[in-house]
Amino acid sequence: MKVRNCENITETEVTMDGAEKARMRLLISEKEGAENFAMRMFTVAPGGHTPYHFHDYEHEVFVLEGKGLLRGEDGSHEFASGAVIFVQPNEKHQFVNAGDSPLKFLCLIPVANKCA
Amino acid sequence: MKVRNCENITETEVTMDGAEKARMRLLISEKEGAENFAMRMFTVAPGGHTPYHFHDYEHEVFVLEGKGLLRGEDGSHEFASGAVIFVQPNEKHQFVNAGDSPLKFLCLIPVANKCA
Repeated sequence: MKVRNCENITETEVTMDGAEKARMRLLISEKEGAENFAMRMFTVAPGGHTPYHFHDYEHEVFVLEGKGLLRGEDGSHEFASGAVIFVQPNEKHQFVNAGDSPLKFLCLIPVANKCA
Repeated sequence: MKVRNCENITETEVTMDGAEKARMRLLISEKEGAENFAMRMFTVAPGGHTPYHFHDYEHEVFVLEGKGLLRGEDGSHEFASGAVIFVQPNEKHQFVNAGDSPLKFLCLIPVANKCA
C-alpha cells in the first residue's frame, strides 16, 4: 500500500492543444502498479479550460472544488464540487472553469491496451 | 455524458462482515456504461471502519474529508483529506475512522472479468 498527500505529487502544465490555465497531477498510475486505470487531478484556474475534444476511452470524474461548465454536443452542463460525471468513449467534452476560484477535479481513465 | 451531485445518489449501509458504521454510494458503475472501473464513495462514522480483508483486485482511493488510519500487514498509516492511497491486489487492508467527524473517501475498483 502507498499513502501520499496529493499536494506532494508533482503538478505539471497541461500542454495539449486547446488547454488553457490547466495543470495536472498524476496521482496513481502504472508506476504505482495500477494496471487497470489511472487517477489524475486537474486544477483549472479561473478563465481556463481543458481541450474540447474526444477519444475512445471514458472519463470518470469527481469534482473536488470550484464551479464549472461541461461542454458537449448535447449542450452545456453546470456543475460544482461534489459533482460526479461520466463521459462515455467518443463523446466530445470540455471542462471549463466557470467560477472565480480554482476548479479542481479528479479524472480517471483506463490504462491503454490492458486487455491486449 | 451524465452529471449528478453525489448527495443525490442513494447511500446504503455496508453489510459486509467486519464493517462498522460504514455507508456506501455507488457513484459510477456499469449502469452508467462504465465498463472498466467503478467509482464508489464511502462514509465511515466516528468509531467505524471497513472490514480488515483482502481480495484479488486493487483499490485506488482519494480521501475527501476526515482523518483515518489504514491498517495493513506492514503496520498502520495515518491519513487525512487529500490523501491518495493505492492498495495492491491481495494486500490486507482496513480503513478506520481515526477522528471525530465523518471519514469520506472515494474508492475505485476494476470491473470484474472485463478482459474475459
